[in-house]
Amino acid sequence: MTQSTYVVTGMTCGHCVASVKEEVGELPGVRGVDVDLISGRVLVTSEGVLALEQVEGAVQVAGYQLVR
Amino acid sequence: MTQSTYVVTGMTCGHCVASVKEEVGELPGVRGVDVDLISGRVLVTSEGVLALEQVEGAVQVAGYQLVR
Repeated sequence: MTQSTYVVTGMTCGHCVASVKEEVGELPGVRGVDVDLISGRVLVTSEGVLALEQVEGAVQVAGYQLVR
Repeated sequence: MTQSTYVVTGMTCGHCVASVKEEVGELPGVRGVDVDLISGRVLVTSEGVLALEQVEGAVQVAGYQLVR
Protein backbone atom coordinates (compact mmCIF):
# COMPACT_ATOMS: atom_id res chain seq x y z
CA MET A 1 0.00 0.00 0.00
CA THR A 2 1.10 3.56 -0.75
CA GLN A 3 0.12 6.60 1.27
CA SER A 4 0.24 10.10 -0.16
CA THR A 5 -0.85 13.42 1.29
CA TYR A 6 -2.34 16.24 -0.74
CA VAL A 7 -3.67 19.66 0.18
CA VAL A 8 -7.10 20.68 -1.06
CA THR A 9 -8.55 24.18 -0.80
CA GLY A 10 -12.16 25.31 -0.75
CA MET A 11 -13.70 22.76 1.60
CA THR A 12 -15.87 24.44 4.21
CA CYS A 13 -17.97 21.72 5.84
CA GLY A 14 -18.59 18.03 6.25
CA HIS A 15 -20.48 17.85 2.97
CA CYS A 16 -17.38 19.11 1.18
CA VAL A 17 -15.25 16.50 2.94
CA ALA A 18 -17.70 13.78 1.91
CA SER A 19 -17.61 14.90 -1.72
CA VAL A 20 -13.82 14.80 -1.86
CA LYS A 21 -13.74 11.41 -0.15
CA GLU A 22 -16.28 10.04 -2.59
CA GLU A 23 -14.60 11.23 -5.78
CA VAL A 24 -11.03 10.41 -4.78
CA GLY A 25 -12.22 7.11 -3.34
CA GLU A 26 -13.54 6.09 -6.76
CA LEU A 27 -10.09 6.28 -8.41
CA PRO A 28 -8.72 2.86 -9.40
CA GLY A 29 -6.60 1.33 -6.66
CA VAL A 30 -7.66 3.70 -3.89
CA ARG A 31 -8.37 1.85 -0.64
CA GLY A 32 -8.86 4.74 1.77
CA VAL A 33 -9.25 8.51 1.89
CA ASP A 34 -8.95 10.58 5.05
CA VAL A 35 -9.68 14.27 4.96
CA ASP A 36 -8.97 16.93 7.58
CA LEU A 37 -11.32 19.82 6.93
CA ILE A 38 -9.39 22.46 8.86
CA SER A 39 -5.98 21.88 7.28
CA GLY A 40 -7.30 20.68 3.93
CA ARG A 41 -5.01 17.66 4.10
CA VAL A 42 -6.14 14.58 2.21
CA LEU A 43 -4.41 11.30 2.98
CA VAL A 44 -4.89 8.72 0.27
CA THR A 45 -4.07 5.04 0.73
CA SER A 46 -3.75 3.14 -2.54
CA GLU A 47 -2.41 0.07 -4.22
CA GLY A 48 0.45 1.48 -6.23
CA VAL A 49 1.25 5.11 -6.92
CA LEU A 50 -1.44 7.43 -8.26
CA ALA A 51 -0.69 10.07 -10.86
CA LEU A 52 -1.06 13.54 -9.41
CA GLU A 53 -3.30 14.43 -12.35
CA GLN A 54 -5.71 11.64 -11.41
CA VAL A 55 -6.08 12.90 -7.87
CA GLU A 56 -6.33 16.50 -9.04
CA GLY A 57 -9.05 15.51 -11.51
CA ALA A 58 -11.11 13.77 -8.86
CA VAL A 59 -10.77 16.75 -6.52
CA GLN A 60 -11.92 19.05 -9.31
CA VAL A 61 -14.90 16.84 -10.07
CA ALA A 62 -15.86 17.22 -6.42
CA GLY A 63 -15.65 20.99 -6.88
CA TYR A 64 -12.37 21.86 -5.14
CA GLN A 65 -8.75 22.61 -5.93
CA LEU A 66 -5.64 20.58 -5.26
CA VAL A 67 -2.59 22.63 -4.31
CA ARG A 68 0.42 21.60 -6.39
CA MET B 1 -49.69 31.03 -1.54
CA THR B 2 -47.88 32.32 1.51
CA GLN B 3 -44.28 33.53 1.57
CA SER B 4 -42.22 33.67 4.75
CA THR B 5 -38.58 34.52 5.30
CA TYR B 6 -36.41 32.89 7.94
CA VAL B 7 -32.75 33.26 8.86
CA VAL B 8 -30.61 30.14 9.17
CA THR B 9 -27.08 30.06 10.56
CA GLY B 10 -24.29 27.59 9.93
CA MET B 11 -24.52 27.14 6.17
CA THR B 12 -21.11 27.44 4.53
CA CYS B 13 -21.47 26.09 1.00
CA GLY B 14 -23.78 24.90 -1.73
CA HIS B 15 -24.15 21.49 -0.15
CA CYS B 16 -25.50 23.14 3.00
CA VAL B 17 -27.95 25.15 0.91
CA ALA B 18 -29.09 21.98 -0.84
CA SER B 19 -29.64 20.20 2.49
CA VAL B 20 -31.80 23.01 3.86
CA LYS B 21 -33.78 23.23 0.63
CA GLU B 22 -34.39 19.49 0.65
CA GLU B 23 -35.55 19.22 4.26
CA VAL B 24 -37.71 22.36 4.28
CA GLY B 25 -39.04 21.43 0.86
CA GLU B 26 -40.39 18.17 2.25
CA LEU B 27 -42.69 19.91 4.75
CA PRO B 28 -46.39 19.53 3.89
CA GLY B 29 -47.66 22.38 1.75
CA VAL B 30 -44.26 23.78 0.79
CA ARG B 31 -44.06 24.66 -2.90
CA GLY B 32 -40.71 26.42 -3.06
CA VAL B 33 -37.61 27.15 -1.01
CA ASP B 34 -35.02 29.75 -1.95
CA VAL B 35 -31.85 30.07 0.09
CA ASP B 36 -29.25 32.82 0.04
CA LEU B 37 -26.03 31.37 1.41
CA ILE B 38 -24.34 34.66 2.29
CA SER B 39 -27.20 36.22 4.25
CA GLY B 40 -28.64 32.93 5.50
CA ARG B 41 -32.09 34.03 4.37
CA VAL B 42 -34.54 31.26 3.50
CA LEU B 43 -37.66 32.24 1.57
CA VAL B 44 -40.39 29.63 1.80
CA THR B 45 -43.44 29.60 -0.46
CA SER B 46 -46.25 27.44 0.86
CA GLU B 47 -49.93 26.70 0.68
CA GLY B 48 -51.15 28.07 3.98
CA VAL B 49 -49.08 29.21 6.93
CA LEU B 50 -46.37 26.95 8.36
CA ALA B 51 -45.76 26.67 12.08
CA LEU B 52 -42.36 28.11 12.99
CA GLU B 53 -41.62 24.89 14.85
CA GLN B 54 -42.08 22.88 11.66
CA VAL B 55 -39.60 24.98 9.74
CA GLU B 56 -37.19 25.01 12.66
CA GLY B 57 -37.41 21.23 12.90
CA ALA B 58 -36.63 20.75 9.22
CA VAL B 59 -33.68 23.13 9.45
CA GLN B 60 -32.36 21.19 12.44
CA VAL B 61 -32.73 17.89 10.62
CA ALA B 62 -30.56 19.38 7.88
CA GLY B 63 -27.98 20.23 10.56
CA TYR B 64 -28.45 23.99 10.96
CA GLN B 65 -30.09 26.51 13.24
CA LEU B 66 -33.04 28.79 12.64
CA VAL B 67 -32.74 32.21 14.25
CA ARG B 68 -35.92 33.06 16.16
